[in-house]
Amino acid sequence: MVVNATSVTTAPPVKKATEDTKRALLGKVDCFIFDCDGVIWRGDSVIDGVPETLDALRKLGKKLVFVTNNSTKSRKGYLGKFTSLGLDVNAEEIYSSSYAAAAYLESINFPQDKKVYIVGEVGIQEELDLKGIRYCGGPDDADKKIDLKPGYALPHDEDVGAVVVGFDRHLNYYKIQYATLCISENPGCHFIATNLDARTHLTDAQEWAGNGAMVGAIKGSTKREPTVVGKPAEFMLANIATTFGLKRSQICMVGDRLDTDILFGQQGGLSTMLVLSGVTTEQALLSPENTIHPDCYTDQLSDLLEAAQSAA
Amino acid sequence: MVVNATSVTTAPPVKKATEDTKRALLGKVDCFIFDCDGVIWRGDSVIDGVPETLDALRKLGKKLVFVTNNSTKSRKGYLGKFTSLGLDVNAEEIYSSSYAAAAYLESINFPQDKKVYIVGEVGIQEELDLKGIRYCGGPDDADKKIDLKPGYALPHDEDVGAVVVGFDRHLNYYKIQYATLCISENPGCHFIATNLDARTHLTDAQEWAGNGAMVGAIKGSTKREPTVVGKPAEFMLANIATTFGLKRSQICMVGDRLDTDILFGQQGGLSTMLVLSGVTTEQALLSPENTIHPDCYTDQLSDLLEAAQSAA
Repeated sequence: MVVNATSVTTAPPVKKATEDTKRALLGKVDCFIFDCDGVIWRGDSVIDGVPETLDALRKLGKKLVFVTNNSTKSRKGYLGKFTSLGLDVNAEEIYSSSYAAAAYLESINFPQDKKVYIVGEVGIQEELDLKGIRYCGGPDDADKKIDLKPGYALPHDEDVGAVVVGFDRHLNYYKIQYATLCISENPGCHFIATNLDARTHLTDAQEWAGNGAMVGAIKGSTKREPTVVGKPAEFMLANIATTFGLKRSQICMVGDRLDTDILFGQQGGLSTMLVLSGVTTEQALLSPENTIHPDCYTDQLSDLLEAAQSAA
Repeated sequence: MVVNATSVTTAPPVKKATEDTKRALLGKVDCFIFDCDGVIWRGDSVIDGVPETLDALRKLGKKLVFVTNNSTKSRKGYLGKFTSLGLDVNAEEIYSSSYAAAAYLESINFPQDKKVYIVGEVGIQEELDLKGIRYCGGPDDADKKIDLKPGYALPHDEDVGAVVVGFDRHLNYYKIQYATLCISENPGCHFIATNLDARTHLTDAQEWAGNGAMVGAIKGSTKREPTVVGKPAEFMLANIATTFGLKRSQICMVGDRLDTDILFGQQGGLSTMLVLSGVTTEQALLSPENTIHPDCYTDQLSDLLEAAQSAA
């Protein structure tokens, strides 16, 4: 096929946010969704100017949502990370994938006579407790083993109507088999993944296998695809928009990664802002090979401070 | 789109093997590859007439290969199953996926100064020992835990040049992270799966999560696809054909499953025979919805006995 040169789509120019762009953004947007690592903090240090910028946005009445795919803690549990870094945040502003799992079950009116089997840690339990959803598994099954004898069958609870799989340092064969039985044999049983991240940051010293491993195990034995509720799932955006009564265009995704944060925001119909304080360089953003273009970009979040203060 | 009725492909008729068909098969084929469950035995019972039929085929000089995706035992270890059922078989006639992993590494001239990290059980260790291939992991890592401290990194051996993932009742996060590090960080490290079976038969009382779970975990954290060496991988057929110096058409796959055994045989260019002593019924085979047609089918393996004896 011969491609006519004039018909080739030219990528739209990506421009660094000016003060006018920032004021326009603040005028249009009522809610900011922040990816944390690379935007709010880097490792164990808050990025310069972030606390003041968050305060200024709050004074303008903006809703702030801090998104994390960490499911090992509840929103309340994750608050400690913010507090330890000197960030004044409410638990309700944190959108952890453990919370997303509980919110998803609530959104589908998960029956009160059913329960959840958890592959995961305490964060999911705490969020289910807050929604009054019954559960089993999780940390209670951390040390369980299967003692094989001829004719042995692992019994499983027929009341399990959903399996939630989150990151689990204590994954074992007992949990894999239990989850597999529930998903395969309990009619209508949901298979919910908090996220599919290949890697997670247990320590700064190396990358650690993430929840992609736990979900991969259950996918491999059930041949089923999970419903993903954390980033980059559509459910999270729908849930945030409904909670605050906002249109998608009134929400801005702020992130440091093009292929996750910005793409996720764009696919969900949000405004998008890239910050260069994380993994993406200006060179990579402006490269002709990059096809993901945020609405605007800036060096770091605190570049919004002046515009926010002057709009107050 | 309007489909012209005359252009619709008609499925070839599937005919039950006559004595003539069987004689022709025995004349053409020098090696039989048997799926075991549903062909040789059902659960813990040998299917009627199988020992005599195997003897008759051996007397005709036919090579016999018994295929199993069970990687927890070596060929020698798996021999016990045959012996306990009164079947007189040599270890060399058994093609276990644990052996396939070792044979694959040998086929790629796996360097002597490299070693294998095993996610799996003793069968893989024993087969690697027989090929003189060094390894670590496996049962030795069954009870290992990761003690997380700030700044902690799990050290891994840079000499690991391949990760072999087989069924492992003692899968844990240590093994997942170790395998992930080797595959992601050791240049050129191979990722080998003995098989991808979703389910396995640890006991007859229920279906158990299979090696699909273990491989799924490592796929989920590495985002890499493994080289599969057991059934239904091409490697196994190539290896059997090379070992015996046979053309593909001289090999017949005998199985009880259309979508695994027969399809696998056809894709590999083998002759194929379905037996109805396992999971496939004659009705399912002859159904217009079935598109997988073996070269011939028969009720059970012992239907070959008369033709084999008369050919002797």
